[in-house]
Amino acid sequence: MVNVGIIGYGYWGPNLVRNFFAADGCYVKMVADARLGRLEQLKKVFPSILAVKSAEEIIKNPDIDAVVIATPVSAHFELAKKALLQGKHVLVEKPMTASVEEAEILINIAEQKGLLLMVDHTFLYTGAVQKMRQLINNNELGNIKYVDSTRINLGLFQSDINVLWDLAPHDLSILSYLVDETAYSVNARGITHTCNGIENIAYLTVNFPSGLIAHFNCSWTSPVKVRMMLIGGDEKMILYNDLENTEKIKVYDTGYTYYNDEERQQVLVDYRTGDIHVPKVSTTEALLNMANDFISCIQTGNKPESSCNLGLEVVKILEASTISIKNQGREVVVENQSTPVAFNV
Amino acid sequence: MVNVGIIGYGYWGPNLVRNFFAADGCYVKMVADARLGRLEQLKKVFPSILAVKSAEEIIKNPDIDAVVIATPVSAHFELAKKALLQGKHVLVEKPMTASVEEAEILINIAEQKGLLLMVDHTFLYTGAVQKMRQLINNNELGNIKYVDSTRINLGLFQSDINVLWDLAPHDLSILSYLVDETAYSVNARGITHTCNGIENIAYLTVNFPSGLIAHFNCSWTSPVKVRMMLIGGDEKMILYNDLENTEKIKVYDTGYTYYNDEERQQVLVDYRTGDIHVPKVSTTEALLNMANDFISCIQTGNKPESSCNLGLEVVKILEASTISIKNQGREVVVENQSTPVAFNV
Amino acid sequence: MVNVGIIGYGYWGPNLVRNFFAADGCYVKMVADARLGRLEQLKKVFPSILAVKSAEEIIKNPDIDAVVIATPVSAHFELAKKALLQGKHVLVEKPMTASVEEAEILINIAEQKGLLLMVDHTFLYTGAVQKMRQLINNNELGNIKYVDSTRINLGLFQSDINVLWDLAPHDLSILSYLVDETAYSVNARGITHTCNGIENIAYLTVNFPSGLIAHFNCSWTSPVKVRMMLIGGDEKMILYNDLENTEKIKVYDTGYTYYNDEERQQVLVDYRTGDIHVPKVSTTEALLNMANDFISCIQTGNKPESSCNLGLEVVKILEASTISIKNQGREVVVENQSTPVAFNV
Amino acid sequence: MVNVGIIGYGYWGPNLVRNFFAADGCYVKMVADARLGRLEQLKKVFPSILAVKSAEEIIKNPDIDAVVIATPVSAHFELAKKALLQGKHVLVEKPMTASVEEAEILINIAEQKGLLLMVDHTFLYTGAVQKMRQLINNNELGNIKYVDSTRINLGLFQSDINVLWDLAPHDLSILSYLVDETAYSVNARGITHTCNGIENIAYLTVNFPSGLIAHFNCSWTSPVKVRMMLIGGDEKMILYNDLENTEKIKVYDTGYTYYNDEERQQVLVDYRTGDIHVPKVSTTEALLNMANDFISCIQTGNKPESSCNLGLEVVKILEASTISIKNQGREVVVENQSTPVAFNV
Repeated sequence: MVNVGIIGYGYWGPNLVRNFFAADGCYVKMVADARLGRLEQLKKVFPSILAVKSAEEIIKNPDIDAVVIATPVSAHFELAKKALLQGKHVLVEKPMTASVEEAEILINIAEQKGLLLMVDHTFLYTGAVQKMRQLINNNELGNIKYVDSTRINLGLFQSDINVLWDLAPHDLSILSYLVDETAYSVNARGITHTCNGIENIAYLTVNFPSGLIAHFNCSWTSPVKVRMMLIGGDEKMILYNDLENTEKIKVYDTGYTYYNDEERQQVLVDYRTGDIHVPKVSTTEALLNMANDFISCIQTGNKPESSCNLGLEVVKILEASTISIKNQGREVVVENQSTPVAFNV
Repeated sequence: MVNVGIIGYGYWGPNLVRNFFAADGCYVKMVADARLGRLEQLKKVFPSILAVKSAEEIIKNPDIDAVVIATPVSAHFELAKKALLQGKHVLVEKPMTASVEEAEILINIAEQKGLLLMVDHTFLYTGAVQKMRQLINNNELGNIKYVDSTRINLGLFQSDINVLWDLAPHDLSILSYLVDETAYSVNARGITHTCNGIENIAYLTVNFPSGLIAHFNCSWTSPVKVRMMLIGGDEKMILYNDLENTEKIKVYDTGYTYYNDEERQQVLVDYRTGDIHVPKVSTTEALLNMANDFISCIQTGNKPESSCNLGLEVVKILEASTISIKNQGREVVVENQSTPVAFNV
Repeated sequence: MVNVGIIGYGYWGPNLVRNFFAADGCYVKMVADARLGRLEQLKKVFPSILAVKSAEEIIKNPDIDAVVIATPVSAHFELAKKALLQGKHVLVEKPMTASVEEAEILINIAEQKGLLLMVDHTFLYTGAVQKMRQLINNNELGNIKYVDSTRINLGLFQSDINVLWDLAPHDLSILSYLVDETAYSVNARGITHTCNGIENIAYLTVNFPSGLIAHFNCSWTSPVKVRMMLIGGDEKMILYNDLENTEKIKVYDTGYTYYNDEERQQVLVDYRTGDIHVPKVSTTEALLNMANDFISCIQTGNKPESSCNLGLEVVKILEASTISIKNQGREVVVENQSTPVAFNV
Repeated sequence: MVNVGIIGYGYWGPNLVRNFFAADGCYVKMVADARLGRLEQLKKVFPSILAVKSAEEIIKNPDIDAVVIATPVSAHFELAKKALLQGKHVLVEKPMTASVEEAEILINIAEQKGLLLMVDHTFLYTGAVQKMRQLINNNELGNIKYVDSTRINLGLFQSDINVLWDLAPHDLSILSYLVDETAYSVNARGITHTCNGIENIAYLTVNFPSGLIAHFNCSWTSPVKVRMMLIGGDEKMILYNDLENTEKIKVYDTGYTYYNDEERQQVLVDYRTGDIHVPKVSTTEALLNMANDFISCIQTGNKPESSCNLGLEVVKILEASTISIKNQGREVVVENQSTPVAFNV
């Protein structure tokens, strides 16, 4: 039985508690939140959980095996570091950390201590993303040529992170999960409509060595909610619409091929549009799948689907996007050499 | 009666002939196309029109008052210049020319000769765009904060121009028509999936001095067709979906305001979502409205809705986008100082 | 404080418990279900509730003020009768009873004993239906000429009632709530695809003295889920799509008028299509509103929105539909004379 | 070369002329219409066609091989009869005639004279209906259990026929084409909102011996346009939405099976929902396919897809529906015994 402590009982907290309760082989023993009102709420619904004010109490409790960190991003690093150093397995909410350096330090510690460090990129555990992964692994799409994602709605303006750090982790984690290639560079532009300088609309292009291009349109200021991703292979293409109830994924037997017509001295393109296939996808709750993966990997030592390396990839792209935005959209290379991080455990 | 000659009888030609026939006060006298097959087709359907092989025959014909140029972009400048110098009014298809310099020369000649020079940005004449213009002019949207446009489908790969020059003129003309501000700079990234180096996917951001940001997502390689534009004001927002039959424009009574909460030392945002209004829009054929505007402005000397200056704006942004794409997406300032163009009529 | 006992803890039971807990001025004291497994489930989630096996224990408990009956329809009458005779206020799930006679007896007892008898037609408490009622009361639609409802999906085949008794109560209650006229007759046809003779597809037409026609298409065997109702007035028309998240109600400024053209000796019709208005509707949970109405009417003696007379109307139409189906769709008059029901309290 | 004469140049006339011009092996020689304005229009667009005022001129012209009758329904019989008796092949618009008797007489004459008599049920020639036929013939759906069709919009109120005679022929022809069973009876209810007694809303149920039920919802008074048909088999089900551009047909791998559970003494139903398949359908213009079928069957003597017997089936159901409406919806048996029709050629 893995004893879990959850730090942070905000918007996402109740969902975490509920799903870790439902997961196999674990018990939610403690929850920490500095806000008394939140603790009151917790006690009413889950009287069996020990509610504490300070994260330290969880981290230092010898009965706790694993810590789930569901605080604002800025606190992820310090809490995760302390928990790892205390020998706890750690799950952090997305995005993993506020910087690449922080993420690399955490990975380094977890490795040295032989602990599981995992990031809650919940979308990877949805039936839709699992089905897309399966289609891609079966090579049904051919070579992936582009990814085009739109995630917009009238959303809560965050006061600590911009719209890319808030919304794009979902799509970037899916990108990393589905595409077997490391990003070379990014371009990003954003705009803020408030006086705090935090972008509420931003556009991000991620460029890959093979010519694959991935584009992300994120906004907190759209009157309509859109959650759509196109994945274009040279054999087939996928439309992933997360707002659809029964047709989340459509696989289009659509493509084009080109060849040089030497006589006419130009490139000719042949188009093909065929049937559309809408595979049934599992509707198991993604968060429960994620919780089960976390607990199971603690027990088995296996690598989780949503690994810390994938979490690091996401932070690398986000960090590069911030630099690009500050430089009016110029191309910023994503540093992928594994920088040796000096951290003495 | 304005006698019209049309140069180029390709994909768009029959539509032009049909609508200029239907327009008031004009007569389609000649059509030129170098391809015999196209001329055969013309004669079968419109036996009354004089079909000629060479554009020169139209330009030099003293009976012709106005010339419509519907050729590939690369030929626009030479043909329009010759026609203007021969004293003909000129309508060119979009985009106006292949460069800013060419567009400025044409405008210069037209002014000196007192002739009408107009660009066929057909979308400006749709009921939807007219209705949006009216809503904006009535200040229903408040200050426009962003424009976000997606125009993608499995489209014909052009062999002379990239996807932005092919598709974005529609959206850029709408942008110029609706927004009363001149673009400051652009960023653009694109990718080609063929060996001819012509981008088939491209993303363009247009930045304005006021902080307005406009974004354009263009692709010839999407399995689904999308024709969607969001226009976000701080009072109301519009969703313009050109593929909708009866609900092309939705006006959302949606917005947000922010204020500094000094006590909590942060920016607070208030959200508002209210009713949606779907105004009825005129369904008159836009191309006919355009033809009528061209003929009427010839007769009255008025300025058309789709003026040559708007056409020039579009080319300026396109030209800057090409430079940005070649420079990996770095910001390129749109030159808006009216460069004195030396052209001696 | 109104002490509530709930009889039946099946599919709908947990929702009732949760919402009566959240309602003002009441306390969920007891729940009865003959199935031990269901009681186990209840105790796990709501340990404070007294879980009993027999409905009698609730009905006879002097601490209980109000009884909620959430059993199969066939048990409604006996349980409600007993509870009323024991002086309890009663809420029954829809449809109210299995026959008109039963419904009339219950109403009779409740009146004699001065108790509240209410039917849980939850839909009446949705923001959408409340908004439509308001639009109709403001006379925005003009005279209502037709109602056309489709409620189909791949649904659970019930083993005790047919698809009309299962699905149509929702739509019939909305009809009764919105239309200020009593049904004259019905026609219904249905078909069973199993060997138990219970219709899984049925079509019901309800005819009104004014010429208003209402039609109901119900099926448990559709591959797609549809929840759609058209309400056509001679001034405006409403499309109510319950599956829409943000556009549940669309008000069409659409209509037609006719006049006799005596010269041409025929009827001429003028059409009108104008703007569409999508009013914002409240998203408060309907079941909570219903629970609050029940408790509040117990306390104040007011008549609830979802009254027992409305519940009776629904049963009258259902009973007539059953007769029509058995008679191959012939017209069956809905008996609306209030039959004196002999019941000696 | 088959010389064609077209009688009636109203709304549908220009489409017929255009497509018979495009069809193989035929020539549109004459068009008749009593309205001078219509003839003027014809001459402008098709100067080569001989425009005449009287249908007689076409019927009596020895150069005409085939007559197309595109007049109001009431004139179909007399014109078709005369044309057949003059030895012309005949195509009549849908519905074939105003009564079963008329249709049977025409079929009788055509048989005796060895002429082709065909009804223009254009929908049978669409890619969507052809694809559905193919799926059904391949037995992909299993046994067809129900057909449910909705065809509503704000439509032109006809002054000679009610909404069923106007709209249902499309769906009834599809029904007859897809389902290999003859209707046993119908029930229909309708309502008129004008003073001319012609129903503008009507509901029709068609009952088949096997238990198959088909339902048709037709209205000229809906604010939204719906063109939807569900075809439910016990293996798979089809959603046919004619307003979709690229997804007209969706094939659902959805079904249910039932069995008697003797222990529990009830019927148990097992549900199944699987993938959805959206087959590509041909987008060739249906009217052109129809014209080609007509001409080709004249030349070869083959039976057309849209045969006169199918046209007769449609009229039989329509005639029975009229009787049912006049009898408040009671079941009316469709007479299918081939009544010997006395007609002496």
